[in-house]
Amino acid sequence: MNEPQRYTIASLEAFVESALLAGGADAPSARAATRAMMHGSRLGVDSHGVRLLPYYLSVIASGEVNGVPQLVVERGSGATAVLDADGAIGHLACYRAMEEAVDIATSQGIGAVTIRRMSHMGAAGAYALWAAEQGHIGLLVANSDAAVRLFDGRNAFHGTSPIAVGAPAPGQDRPWLLDMATSAIPMNRVLLYRSLGVALPDGVAVDETGRPTNDADAARVLSPLGAAQGYKGAGLAGLVEILSAPLTGMLLSTELSPMYGASTGKPRDMGGFALAINPAAFVGPEIYGAIMARYLANIRAAEPAEGASGKPMAPGDREWAVEAERLRNGVPVDPVSVAAFAELSARYGLTLPERA
Amino acid sequence: MNEPQRYTIASLEAFVESALLAGGADAPSARAATRAMMHGSRLGVDSHGVRLLPYYLSVIASGEVNGVPQLVVERGSGATAVLDADGAIGHLACYRAMEEAVDIATSQGIGAVTIRRMSHMGAAGAYALWAAEQGHIGLLVANSDAAVRLFDGRNAFHGTSPIAVGAPAPGQDRPWLLDMATSAIPMNRVLLYRSLGVALPDGVAVDETGRPTNDADAARVLSPLGAAQGYKGAGLAGLVEILSAPLTGMLLSTELSPMYGASTGKPRDMGGFALAINPAAFVGPEIYGAIMARYLANIRAAEPAEGASGKPMAPGDREWAVEAERLRNGVPVDPVSVAAFAELSARYGLTLPERA
Repeated sequence: MNEPQRYTIASLEAFVESALLAGGADAPSARAATRAMMHGSRLGVDSHGVRLLPYYLSVIASGEVNGVPQLVVERGSGATAVLDADGAIGHLACYRAMEEAVDIATSQGIGAVTIRRMSHMGAAGAYALWAAEQGHIGLLVANSDAAVRLFDGRNAFHGTSPIAVGAPAPGQDRPWLLDMATSAIPMNRVLLYRSLGVALPDGVAVDETGRPTNDADAARVLSPLGAAQGYKGAGLAGLVEILSAPLTGMLLSTELSPMYGASTGKPRDMGGFALAINPAAFVGPEIYGAIMARYLANIRAAEPAEGASGKPMAPGDREWAVEAERLRNGVPVDPVSVAAFAELSARYGLTLPERA
Repeated sequence: MNEPQRYTIASLEAFVESALLAGGADAPSARAATRAMMHGSRLGVDSHGVRLLPYYLSVIASGEVNGVPQLVVERGSGATAVLDADGAIGHLACYRAMEEAVDIATSQGIGAVTIRRMSHMGAAGAYALWAAEQGHIGLLVANSDAAVRLFDGRNAFHGTSPIAVGAPAPGQDRPWLLDMATSAIPMNRVLLYRSLGVALPDGVAVDETGRPTNDADAARVLSPLGAAQGYKGAGLAGLVEILSAPLTGMLLSTELSPMYGASTGKPRDMGGFALAINPAAFVGPEIYGAIMARYLANIRAAEPAEGASGKPMAPGDREWAVEAERLRNGVPVDPVSVAAFAELSARYGLTLPERA
């Protein structure tokens, strides 16, 4: 039986949070990690959804993530702050950093917060979305362990290092939300194509010599976004790297311990960067809102190309549609995770989530 | 005779500035436009180099650009400002905005400046580079008239809307400098391939129906960066759009009058956004510098892929190499521009630049 099981969102959320609490996370860590995983599972970003629960429990257990961290925010003299996350799970660190950035931007017009000593933070879009919901343009970036080559390079150099930006859209149902890896595709898509025996698209991965390959079995390293223009994707990954490592004092992608594999039991000392921009500091809210509404309407009314597989969408539109469907029909969970949830339920005496 | 002519950098710079002054630009406008065009011509960004001199003179003459603008900067309560450029040439507006952003960031740690009512600003990298030379991470973005389709879209929607970021690299010869259009390629590369009768690379342009084409003659609209992952390039163009139009109160790409074609004689009312981040507000300068040095050294030592056309380079490295060559051998100027310079020399009684 390899079909995913669908669970109701509320029961899945309760199960995830209970498991984290049972596994040694304090209440703020468990709440933040649950919120961010449920962001992924609600919006269809399943790679960063509830399937990562066993991973996070394992790194809390090993000590690689501090389940009971003491976060310290140090405000700078102006519109900046530095967050020392004390080895916290990345979700707690990133929500905390974005809250601080929004708080600063509320009074200063813009706020920037660097994040020190965190771990993997899941879907970067969760934090950018939260900022947009507060009425701010939010940006969150963080580097990650090397998996993507440089343009013209052979070996893994940058992480898939995402750029997430949310922008409020007053009067609209939902904000504008971009959450993109700076690699052409994520590594888990290579793994998926490998298991399906399907050829990779052109320009997304290379073999061990650095030559482009469509063979998912031969693919070793991801290519930067842009294929023949991959110097642009690599440049964007570089921007993420600069904001995450030199600007924070943390590690480069090539220096980070791998997310998967045997846990080192040691903090990964990852860095990240949160930025909030308060539109009201620059332009009247009615003007900002009117132009955003016009822009989004123009996107949604744009004529599709002949032969296109779909119609043009604004960043986020696909995710809101997935969320609406999942609110009705529940969140599909893959069989490996279903089995892991049964094991966690037995281990901690937790009620399993309800089938939708 | 279709060979480019090479001119010495100093004499070319003097010629460009004299022509702008003679053509009705005031001294600050002429200086800023000359600096920015020479950035392009020194670094090999020839599309935005001195070849644009006749264009800028024509729009000053028509009144589309205000040659004698009164720029007004209004500081916000915190770390922001709004620059009203009064129809100025974009170079003056962008340098002024970045100066203000750096000034704010020097005391506040970060500074953001929106730009209202400017015109075409040439190579965005010029302003990001200047910020980096002052020791700040600088970002400059601006939208531009529609030339690039949405992902799955048929018609021009976004401008080639560049993202430029400069980051200081203490102890290195030159900073890190990314200056990228969010389209796959620039339109002038399509025009070049058309004139050469050469096929376009895959995934960079579409015909009038929106279908991908390799035929430069049939290409009508550029595709966003990323080909099959073009939703990422379109999303980045959207970020530029949001910072340039809703956040400034200026026009969307689809609403801007075209750069080329008959001048309307009316200001184009373009918007843009300048950001400066002061690393010293977040991390000790010696830490920032050491990690940047390690990062750049790692890039330059990275093993090339088998079959790669070159070795991995940091953003900017290609440009510094071009600049070094041009400092020795002069700047090559295309024959059309050489003829235009002769006409300008006659019209205004200017000494032509010296052949290198």
